[in-house]
Amino acid sequence: MSDDTKRLDPEKSFHMTPDEFRRWGHQTVDWIAGYMERVGDLPVRSQVAPGEIRARLPASPPQQGESFDVMLRDVDEHLLDGITHWQSPDFFAYFPANASGPSILGELLSAGLGVQGMLWATSPACTELETLVMDWLVEMLGLPQTFLSTSTGGGVIQDTASSAALCALIAARERTTGFLTDKRGCQQDSEGQGTLVAYTSTQAHSSIEKAVRIAGLGQQNLRLIEVDENYAMRPAALEAAIRRDRQAGRRPCFVSATIGTTSSHGLDPIGTIGEICRHLGVWLHVDAAMAGTAALCPEHRKMHDGLELADSYCFNPHKWMFTNFDCDAFWVADRGALIKALSVLPEYLRNEATESGAVLDYRDWQIPLGRRFRALKLWFVIRHYGVAGLRHHVRQHIGLARRFAGWVAQSEDFELAAPVPLNLVCFRHLGGDAFNQRLLDLLNNSGDLYLTHTKLGGLLTLRLSIGQTHTTAEHVQRAWRNIESTAKAMAKDLKPCE
Amino acid sequence: MSDDTKRLDPEKSFHMTPDEFRRWGHQTVDWIAGYMERVGDLPVRSQVAPGEIRARLPASPPQQGESFDVMLRDVDEHLLDGITHWQSPDFFAYFPANASGPSILGELLSAGLGVQGMLWATSPACTELETLVMDWLVEMLGLPQTFLSTSTGGGVIQDTASSAALCALIAARERTTGFLTDKRGCQQDSEGQGTLVAYTSTQAHSSIEKAVRIAGLGQQNLRLIEVDENYAMRPAALEAAIRRDRQAGRRPCFVSATIGTTSSHGLDPIGTIGEICRHLGVWLHVDAAMAGTAALCPEHRKMHDGLELADSYCFNPHKWMFTNFDCDAFWVADRGALIKALSVLPEYLRNEATESGAVLDYRDWQIPLGRRFRALKLWFVIRHYGVAGLRHHVRQHIGLARRFAGWVAQSEDFELAAPVPLNLVCFRHLGGDAFNQRLLDLLNNSGDLYLTHTKLGGLLTLRLSIGQTHTTAEHVQRAWRNIESTAKAMAKDLKPCE
Repeated sequence: MSDDTKRLDPEKSFHMTPDEFRRWGHQTVDWIAGYMERVGDLPVRSQVAPGEIRARLPASPPQQGESFDVMLRDVDEHLLDGITHWQSPDFFAYFPANASGPSILGELLSAGLGVQGMLWATSPACTELETLVMDWLVEMLGLPQTFLSTSTGGGVIQDTASSAALCALIAARERTTGFLTDKRGCQQDSEGQGTLVAYTSTQAHSSIEKAVRIAGLGQQNLRLIEVDENYAMRPAALEAAIRRDRQAGRRPCFVSATIGTTSSHGLDPIGTIGEICRHLGVWLHVDAAMAGTAALCPEHRKMHDGLELADSYCFNPHKWMFTNFDCDAFWVADRGALIKALSVLPEYLRNEATESGAVLDYRDWQIPLGRRFRALKLWFVIRHYGVAGLRHHVRQHIGLARRFAGWVAQSEDFELAAPVPLNLVCFRHLGGDAFNQRLLDLLNNSGDLYLTHTKLGGLLTLRLSIGQTHTTAEHVQRAWRNIESTAKAMAKDLKPCE
Repeated sequence: MSDDTKRLDPEKSFHMTPDEFRRWGHQTVDWIAGYMERVGDLPVRSQVAPGEIRARLPASPPQQGESFDVMLRDVDEHLLDGITHWQSPDFFAYFPANASGPSILGELLSAGLGVQGMLWATSPACTELETLVMDWLVEMLGLPQTFLSTSTGGGVIQDTASSAALCALIAARERTTGFLTDKRGCQQDSEGQGTLVAYTSTQAHSSIEKAVRIAGLGQQNLRLIEVDENYAMRPAALEAAIRRDRQAGRRPCFVSATIGTTSSHGLDPIGTIGEICRHLGVWLHVDAAMAGTAALCPEHRKMHDGLELADSYCFNPHKWMFTNFDCDAFWVADRGALIKALSVLPEYLRNEATESGAVLDYRDWQIPLGRRFRALKLWFVIRHYGVAGLRHHVRQHIGLARRFAGWVAQSEDFELAAPVPLNLVCFRHLGGDAFNQRLLDLLNNSGDLYLTHTKLGGLLTLRLSIGQTHTTAEHVQRAWRNIESTAKAMAKDLKPCE
């Protein structure tokens, strides 16, 4: 035994007592409340260089325990400079990952309870609340009735839309091969089976390609279907591609359509795509990770037309529904295929409830075995805001995006790069790629706001995504003034050189 | 627009203000502190019937928001009965998922900051603290130097050991095929490539089979290698299996060895297995999900002998290192293979830091894209306890397991079913399977403690796993008295019928 043991009192506990937890817990809550108050004043994008944060911290772990206040102080003094503030009202980058008080407290309570939800039996409330809340969301978003747990399908919380897509792909792969791939692998085409093929649009999220690679289909067997002028998948091109593959003896197994693409919020036409998939027997997954939240508002449900033809669907409450990451809501129309594809039951997990068939075991609905009690935060968010409150904020964000789009459209120096169906505005300065890149860098380096970019039609395009919890009209107006004035100053500086 | 909008004040916010957050946050912290104080008095395993919890809750979501205190009250009145108390000191089931004050507060702070760690650029501190803490753990557990981020490898936090195994398998699959499977899929053996094969022991966790199925290798291409009398993999049998497959033109690509199997804590001989893998060019993954924590204590590091021959390794701080789920610590010796296998870089994620090559982007080390700031809780735990404090508690748990094993060994009615290298005791009553099942049911139905079972040598076996944060000698003594007296009462009741 090493020296430290000899010096230790064998009865001594190093655990934080409930009283200490109260004290430091209150202090952590106060720290977060203070952070909420000041986050708008901090530079949105961290301005540190690679390695800078690590260099400030001890290279080795402490042998003896330290006090909690020292740790909180280090967060302030050392970590905060390395934080890009996703919760800043001036955060317009990527897609939002908006959080809220009730969600954060739901996460806290989940950590405090510390239960495992892998089986119904390992904590029944964890499973039953999740099933209930997922059924609530079917009602709240007007999703197909087959997605209800009381029907043939059901919902489950995944960490991300990436994992949801992978689960959907595995279920699709297995359904297509009569559940033989799980047994024999994708590699058995020497037995005369055709190569498995998947389809998505050129605008789909990178997670689809990642899933196709992970699942053993291979990147070259993912067809990237062309899009129309609004960046929506062309159904005729999809149908032609599927037919070509079938004629060549390959096995089309999976189509992933997107509602609200990452680059530009393109809306694939689900109804037409769904009919093609039904007709040709291909699994249709619909990824509405960002845009799905808009379906809280009946006036934005048109994008879901035809969703009853989909085999699976997901959207991320952790993007635009005030629920801190991670929380992806994933449904299937036929839970049997998913469960059969992902279930393995070793002796040490056998239990009476599972064998009775009367319960759902969510471990069979996901990649990992273990799972947190994530339904708590979603339940808190929905109850705190109410459906009316959630709708209100979603409408506010969409309204702000439209106002911003209006300013862009009226500007002589800028143009819109894509339609603005919801809360993402894609735009660019007319000065060309180098100008837009420089403009983006200047804005982000200022710390006043944070935008990211994409390429549309081969041109560098700025993306302004509105969905941060505390973003108001004032922040969006200030962002536009800042973008306009920075561009004007740049143009002025450039003139003498031209 | 629906009616609710018309009635709403467009400027009204439904968000929880910082002051409200302080108030409800303090109340939630107090609730958890109170839960810590009383959890030992609650029935460990929930005693509800399927559907019971859901039936108590409203079937539809509320239209208008509700007060936070109503929600907390519902947790007490409705959810708590459906909770199996993984944080009870009388929880001896499965493997522990032990939490602690500093960990819970780290999770809270992570939720409050609400940052994304998918790229270094999306929040540098999130990535750099994670890399640092993973390097700390290499030092703390005496792991191979190649696992350090400053060497060729590096560590990353995964949600679970299941996901870690899947990532390792994908990297192994790609390394074996020269990164062609990612492109062409597993299905291309028509081009003359042999079937990919993976290996693990008959005692390995079900997640290995799940990973093999997900990755497209197929269950029938996972060889379950026989074990010795201590439930450890027989290296000679592994070597023979690999050679057989190679001779048959198949491609062995992945071996998963276990340190501390789920059923019985069998310890696969890593050194011998590692030499075979090196010699035959097969990726060796080592899953020490539960047992790894014991390596905090130098006297328990023998199980890691030969780990420098492994390509990847994981253990779960969320099992036995006081860090609430999810937190799996995963290392690779060569980060290049992992990153190449899992990287996809779309335009909207391109950034200067990534292209400079000076930073790690953890999205390329995992299945999903998004990721939470999980390093915070691990940093808090290590600093709160100090290395000495963590060692102290691990030694306490192992000491308690040995005492319990001693009582079993001395008992006339019970026997040990496997060696007790660490904190898991496998034992059974001599009365046979039906007796043991009945004993298990009576104990778990009492709510006084919670044990689970497995099968060893074909016989039903009870598992007592010691690792819950607040389990002391008193709880373990009480458990043994309870088990003994329940068995005696059962034996007495049975006599007249015999």
